Amino acid sequence: MKTLRVGIIGGGRIGKVHATSISRYVPSAEIVALADPFMNEELESWAKDMGIPETSKDSAYIIDHEGIDAVLICSPTDTHAQLIAAAARAGKHIFCEKPVDTDLKRIRETMEVVRDSGVTFQIGFNRRFDHNHRALRRQVEQGIVGEPQIVKITSRDPSPPPVSYIEVSGGIFLDMMIHDFDMVRYLSGKDVTEVYATGSVMVDPAIGEAGDVDTAIVQLTLSNGALAVIDNSRQAVYGYDQRTEVFGSKGCARVENDTPSLIQTSTAEAVSTEKPLHFFLDRYMDSYSREIIEFAEAVQMGLPTPCGIEDAIRPVEIALAAAKSLKEHRPVAMSEIR
Amino acid sequence: MKTLRVGIIGGGRIGKVHATSISRYVPSAEIVALADPFMNEELESWAKDMGIPETSKDSAYIIDHEGIDAVLICSPTDTHAQLIAAAARAGKHIFCEKPVDTDLKRIRETMEVVRDSGVTFQIGFNRRFDHNHRALRRQVEQGIVGEPQIVKITSRDPSPPPVSYIEVSGGIFLDMMIHDFDMVRYLSGKDVTEVYATGSVMVDPAIGEAGDVDTAIVQLTLSNGALAVIDNSRQAVYGYDQRTEVFGSKGCARVENDTPSLIQTSTAEAVSTEKPLHFFLDRYMDSYSREIIEFAEAVQMGLPTPCGIEDAIRPVEIALAAAKSLKEHRPVAMSEIR
Amino acid sequence: MKTLRVGIIGGGRIGKVHATSISRYVPSAEIVALADPFMNEELESWAKDMGIPETSKDSAYIIDHEGIDAVLICSPTDTHAQLIAAAARAGKHIFCEKPVDTDLKRIRETMEVVRDSGVTFQIGFNRRFDHNHRALRRQVEQGIVGEPQIVKITSRDPSPPPVSYIEVSGGIFLDMMIHDFDMVRYLSGKDVTEVYATGSVMVDPAIGEAGDVDTAIVQLTLSNGALAVIDNSRQAVYGYDQRTEVFGSKGCARVENDTPSLIQTSTAEAVSTEKPLHFFLDRYMDSYSREIIEFAEAVQMGLPTPCGIEDAIRPVEIALAAAKSLKEHRPVAMSEIR
Amino acid sequence: MKTLRVGIIGGGRIGKVHATSISRYVPSAEIVALADPFMNEELESWAKDMGIPETSKDSAYIIDHEGIDAVLICSPTDTHAQLIAAAARAGKHIFCEKPVDTDLKRIRETMEVVRDSGVTFQIGFNRRFDHNHRALRRQVEQGIVGEPQIVKITSRDPSPPPVSYIEVSGGIFLDMMIHDFDMVRYLSGKDVTEVYATGSVMVDPAIGEAGDVDTAIVQLTLSNGALAVIDNSRQAVYGYDQRTEVFGSKGCARVENDTPSLIQTSTAEAVSTEKPLHFFLDRYMDSYSREIIEFAEAVQMGLPTPCGIEDAIRPVEIALAAAKSLKEHRPVAMSEIR
Repeated sequence: MKTLRVGIIGGGRIGKVHATSISRYVPSAEIVALADPFMNEELESWAKDMGIPETSKDSAYIIDHEGIDAVLICSPTDTHAQLIAAAARAGKHIFCEKPVDTDLKRIRETMEVVRDSGVTFQIGFNRRFDHNHRALRRQVEQGIVGEPQIVKITSRDPSPPPVSYIEVSGGIFLDMMIHDFDMVRYLSGKDVTEVYATGSVMVDPAIGEAGDVDTAIVQLTLSNGALAVIDNSRQAVYGYDQRTEVFGSKGCARVENDTPSLIQTSTAEAVSTEKPLHFFLDRYMDSYSREIIEFAEAVQMGLPTPCGIEDAIRPVEIALAAAKSLKEHRPVAMSEIR
Repeated sequence: MKTLRVGIIGGGRIGKVHATSISRYVPSAEIVALADPFMNEELESWAKDMGIPETSKDSAYIIDHEGIDAVLICSPTDTHAQLIAAAARAGKHIFCEKPVDTDLKRIRETMEVVRDSGVTFQIGFNRRFDHNHRALRRQVEQGIVGEPQIVKITSRDPSPPPVSYIEVSGGIFLDMMIHDFDMVRYLSGKDVTEVYATGSVMVDPAIGEAGDVDTAIVQLTLSNGALAVIDNSRQAVYGYDQRTEVFGSKGCARVENDTPSLIQTSTAEAVSTEKPLHFFLDRYMDSYSREIIEFAEAVQMGLPTPCGIEDAIRPVEIALAAAKSLKEHRPVAMSEIR
Repeated sequence: MKTLRVGIIGGGRIGKVHATSISRYVPSAEIVALADPFMNEELESWAKDMGIPETSKDSAYIIDHEGIDAVLICSPTDTHAQLIAAAARAGKHIFCEKPVDTDLKRIRETMEVVRDSGVTFQIGFNRRFDHNHRALRRQVEQGIVGEPQIVKITSRDPSPPPVSYIEVSGGIFLDMMIHDFDMVRYLSGKDVTEVYATGSVMVDPAIGEAGDVDTAIVQLTLSNGALAVIDNSRQAVYGYDQRTEVFGSKGCARVENDTPSLIQTSTAEAVSTEKPLHFFLDRYMDSYSREIIEFAEAVQMGLPTPCGIEDAIRPVEIALAAAKSLKEHRPVAMSEIR
Repeated sequence: MKTLRVGIIGGGRIGKVHATSISRYVPSAEIVALADPFMNEELESWAKDMGIPETSKDSAYIIDHEGIDAVLICSPTDTHAQLIAAAARAGKHIFCEKPVDTDLKRIRETMEVVRDSGVTFQIGFNRRFDHNHRALRRQVEQGIVGEPQIVKITSRDPSPPPVSYIEVSGGIFLDMMIHDFDMVRYLSGKDVTEVYATGSVMVDPAIGEAGDVDTAIVQLTLSNGALAVIDNSRQAVYGYDQRTEVFGSKGCARVENDTPSLIQTSTAEAVSTEKPLHFFLDRYMDSYSREIIEFAEAVQMGLPTPCGIEDAIRPVEIALAAAKSLKEHRPVAMSEIR
């Protein structure tokens, strides 16, 4: 199969994660160029070490590059929509980090451009590609748990981001729980029809002063009548806590947190095991390469991506419904948002 | 310490559970008499085998009995309030199966009678005395998880009761989730300020036709701002599923289901362990003796019981708020109920 | 079915364990009398509370008692053989705590008397009746693990007995590992053909000075060619550690330690669970009632007991072979002992 | 730090594992050349894809190469000793797959050459670098389990190799259990003083006809008096089973098998989890890169390797003692071998 020639826009943390994971674990793709407006000697040198032959300060360099099949958009969120549209018009396949935008109208318009262009599109909900969540999804698909009736997701970060970040994050639902909204759809294979959100400031008053909550529980009603619930906290002192559960007519499947090792130690004081992997890159590194491997496959075989246009829109809609629900202190039907 | 002389009113399933557990595991109590309007030869013979010297068809026999210190009310719910009031007026200490009544006004009036009488009163939320939930409560009390921020309870029955039972049960919140409402208060040590309920008919359409739901998720806001969530299903095909979790500023504690054994079997097909204990009596038998042991201690030492008057009222209030929330499709403040 | 009328000889710790467990959990048996040469007011009072109508200082009182069907021998080991023989001659069914004796010749002669008498006989290897080990045995019997190939047993006490006890104990193989020798036979359903023992003094030099070891590993060859290994320590600081495993042609089954609860606690420092139940009575209480329930059944139905004459002889033979192996520093064939 | 320039001798399975893991995960090393007597177009093309610039049919090409700092010996065992000696004389640092040889005299002579040359030497006991076993080793080193008293290792392969392989393998102790002998030394930090081996043919009679056993348990006495036991089977139908345990004066630490995911599924039939990772490369892939990372560090910093000359000799000695023990049916002191 032909190797997918990739250009990466954005050389920040997530851009580097993709560059590293592609050069190490994705034999079906090669990185042709990296563009970043803040391209400097250090980043150039890093790119060179990574085996990336070309660099630029200009994203257009990537979009116009004849030797590039697909663009990976890893730049700040407010540039996503414009870059997606430009890439689609240039006939480049697109992998874009989530979310497309925080404005729903703009997302929809951008997705229309993509749809019209016919290019392959994938949105970066990497957790779908994690070995644990995927094992759960597979069992639901295979009917092992039967018709989904209750979906439960726990998703807690080891520590909150700086308040300066929270202020521009769009709020906990768009910034953090959006992954879980996607996960509910992914795990259940169902769409969401109604949302009810509660939130509280339990971790840091400064988060409340910034107009956000740091602890939230959201209930979702699914299209088959099933119920889902997500709990988020900005701070789990024991580490990154990501557990999912699907309960259905034939059983219940759930996944636990990965740990650095499976040691169990018994002493006069306690029996103890390892804490969950603390950092999201430790926990989800594999998922970043896996999502690109499957993106490359989709492009090469002309198939839909495992996380496409609708998956780019729906979680944002749900996040906006959740924010509205919290603000108006009432359940919000998805039809109010759509 | 003086042995507590007990009379049991009601010789049905739960009455027999208490009679059995007291005669086997509660050396600090002895059963003087058992009363049941349907007392017959079989029940008399059963009582005799259990070492219960006296039987009667009349609950008044117990209430007026001079050799009885405390009454265990195990009769149908609609008789509880009247029996409690009668026992309180007769100066008998009272242990009553939950709930006192399904009518809040009647509960409050009955509890006023109890309060005025000065007798010791305990309501039968047996799960508080289960070794697992109690271990969790202890860690919360000791501050090991810090300030509670999120409380999660899964509570699923192995199979639904007959629809005829559901029709008179008062609905899933009063009949089933009431235990979990109590558990939220017990585990967190906090009161509930607001309730939001969703419900669905996923298990059996006949339950829906009877005007109830069989799958429900309820969110609670607690007095310290913490959030709680309970999920109930009338049917978990793998057995009785009762898991609780308290997440707080210093950590997270959770308990799993008890199983018949701790065997793990690895074969070419799978690695498997035992299913949860299927029947509530298998799971909670110990809790029935423990609650009576502590009731006897409270009486004998003149101390408050571990599950007293307020604990008899609050979960019913929450259940009514949940029913109202489901009906009116909106969050309901506890102040609306109280 | 007729209730089994039981007399207990020996009112020490294990005698009281049986008396308690029979009066609480064994409806098919009733205790008629308790005999102990040191019978005093306190023990009489204890027996009365337990509902035991008759007491005596003389074991002959039990053996000659016309209203007694079966004798439970809970006296010191050096009295077992004589009491068994006397009871057998008196036509009483016999349950005897392990071991029958430490002298193999005497055991065999005593067992001959029992065999000739035709009474029902059971030896008290209570671990066979534990829910965990039994679940494992059942899977082996059902062929779930296939032909047993490797049997592994870990058996470690929370702390060593006094050296004064060790001095008269007969050594670690006869005193402690004898349970595990029985367990190998029980779990595998195979007999032992050869023994190799190693031992070391790692816990307390005083145990070495008393001529014993406190840490031992013994390998056994089984009649089907399978290999078994047992490790013992007199001191596991984290509590009573009793794990068993059978590996076979179709899989592997193993059991873990019971714990006081199934709580798991995650904090910034560690993820921890409960230590194993510390005391053998906490761990194995159920097994004491279960073994008497099955003894009563065997008597009442005229069936062989689940732990009979051969089971009383074989583990002692293996223990003696192990002691010989350790002393002579070589593998010892069971044929050398038998 | 200077990148370590590596030449690999041997392009079979294990040579490819090292080439892949170095190019992906070991930024501190680069592969300059690959030599294999069966070098062909396919292997050349594979090397090119892996980014290896030079290939040769001749191992001397690597050994004489001025641009190479270190040699990785991945050729058949019978070539190891000669290649090690040649590399050492050429002043190349050496990483060699285990074992150096099956002849103890030859191993010692070869190790003398290495010692005299002063080059850095590491033997490929990769399991020392596995995250689980390493976590266990770390706890022993930190004194968390106290003085080691009992070491237990289970090591079972998913299925036996072809009998043709077994015939030339040197037997189960040299071929398979040698890893576990190393692990006992690694985990306990103690040397072995005596060995007793039992073996049986339970898996396949053809293995017995080839003069080997397929099921074995070996006991080891350690220098501090501690006892160790290893059980091996050529066939665990549920997959690769590799568990280790160290019990000591202050506690017990043990590790479980890695699995593809942490899913747990409860149905009406069973509660099940994933089987252990089936293939040794799935289980131990990380350890192959980790051992080279640490080898490179040792070379670059002039420090001893984590698995050096003595570690190349001792496990072979123990394996020979085990073979002798099995043959002569008696415990064998290590002094008889050394």
